[in-house]
Amino acid sequence: MSLILCEVGPRDGLQTESAMLGPEARAELANRMMATGVPRVEVASFVNPARVPQMAGAEAVVANTVAVAGCARAALVLNRRGYERLRETDCERVHVAFCVTEEFNRRNQGCSVEQSVQQTIQIAESARADGRPVTVILAASFGCPFSGEVDPGRVTALAERVAVAGVDQISFADTIGVGVPWQVKKLLGNSRGLGLTLGLHLHNTRNTGYANAYAAIDAGVGVLDSSVGGIGGCPFAPRATGNIATEDLIYLLEKEGVSTGVDLDGVLGVAEWLAKVLDRPLPGLVYRAGPFPPP
Amino acid sequence: MSLILCEVGPRDGLQTESAMLGPEARAELANRMMATGVPRVEVASFVNPARVPQMAGAEAVVANTVAVAGCARAALVLNRRGYERLRETDCERVHVAFCVTEEFNRRNQGCSVEQSVQQTIQIAESARADGRPVTVILAASFGCPFSGEVDPGRVTALAERVAVAGVDQISFADTIGVGVPWQVKKLLGNSRGLGLTLGLHLHNTRNTGYANAYAAIDAGVGVLDSSVGGIGGCPFAPRATGNIATEDLIYLLEKEGVSTGVDLDGVLGVAEWLAKVLDRPLPGLVYRAGPFPPP
Repeated sequence: MSLILCEVGPRDGLQTESAMLGPEARAELANRMMATGVPRVEVASFVNPARVPQMAGAEAVVANTVAVAGCARAALVLNRRGYERLRETDCERVHVAFCVTEEFNRRNQGCSVEQSVQQTIQIAESARADGRPVTVILAASFGCPFSGEVDPGRVTALAERVAVAGVDQISFADTIGVGVPWQVKKLLGNSRGLGLTLGLHLHNTRNTGYANAYAAIDAGVGVLDSSVGGIGGCPFAPRATGNIATEDLIYLLEKEGVSTGVDLDGVLGVAEWLAKVLDRPLPGLVYRAGPFPPP
Repeated sequence: MSLILCEVGPRDGLQTESAMLGPEARAELANRMMATGVPRVEVASFVNPARVPQMAGAEAVVANTVAVAGCARAALVLNRRGYERLRETDCERVHVAFCVTEEFNRRNQGCSVEQSVQQTIQIAESARADGRPVTVILAASFGCPFSGEVDPGRVTALAERVAVAGVDQISFADTIGVGVPWQVKKLLGNSRGLGLTLGLHLHNTRNTGYANAYAAIDAGVGVLDSSVGGIGGCPFAPRATGNIATEDLIYLLEKEGVSTGVDLDGVLGVAEWLAKVLDRPLPGLVYRAGPFPPP
């Protein structure tokens, strides 16, 4: 079997970095990852730079990326205004996110969940007219930093609401890294009937991220997000830490016989480069321990 | 369902620490973990202190531990001489380890695999006569730092050889943290017919440790080793790093509905204490991120 990996290092990975890389450096990270054969890269986030200064200059990031055949450049938008900016760029794909709980959504998007649902549907209709496929990301699907445990039924109901024309993928995000495998199976199982590609966005905050990715294989996941080196977090979720690391995920998947089409050695090289750029050890482990058997 | 956790922090966890804790401090770690309800603790290693100075004074470690009802104090031995030392102490349980590959076994035990098999059988017979249950640990069952990939059939054949009177458990060790879930299922499945308790000793060197633990649940594992804080390694395996962390394993298992009988908050407290003693952040993540939902 095979899976689509979506590299989110240039977006989720860098959005909480104190290093504040400029648009050229973020584009370089995206370009380096696109050269490894990864089929999708979230290169930027069209959000308010006053709120997330790390993501300022999203247009310049996209402009500095080089299109690669077989790789879609995606960007995150949180509202209509973000999509209006994205549509002026060469981004081939739209990622729309909102939070499934009221308190978190109000802090993250500044509106109610219902308002986010309506906006998401409108964006999907526009993107469809523009010929851009859309992924809807349901943040905090595994637990909320403010309201605690999240009922999978609530997430499933929201997935059904946004499964409209223009949306070709729905992803469930463990934004604060609290999820475990039964939730993976439940969320994917509940939404299988929608007929859309299902994805997961996993964080390894409590060392459950890779077990969740493994559980997702049999549960019919189509897309897994990850960040090179395992960098990342959410600026509005306390103590949310790194995404699962792209290279560690590839190590696990390929050894399990799941094909990703991505060059592990290439990603390890990007992780080593990124650790120098950020001047700190990254959370990923394979780039430090080395693959096995050694090359 | 329920699982037996075996805490290996005082042994595997500390055997590569540069901090070189004395017997009293290692006994304190064991005592603190026994107070959390963990049913088994590997408190010491009866090995040559010239080769592993961190484990010197094993007798004093055991003497400084306080027996707790429902918790077995185990210790590691590599040969007959080690068992002769163990039998003079109050250790209730014997863990005998050897490596499944020749090169690694020669470096770790100083003899051939066949010689280790013979010694292990002799130790099991003595321990049976002494009334001590024995776990045989097959090191490098998932891969060898010197000879590379390991055929599960080779491991299974060795498990069959040592499944003799006196042995009540066989554990497969991923000594260098290279294993993935199909290996877990294969090794446990192959040996299920032996009628013994099967265990796993997992390291998280490449972020596959918790996925392996998760895969082991359905595959009929009876015992999982882990170390508080995720400390650990093997002194004779290059770049082998931490065991899976006890607290992170409990977080995963309990949320999956697998009962461990161990108090997570208690283990988190031990991890915080140990991080101060060792004066560095430990590899475990839950003690830093906190449990979820927060207490």
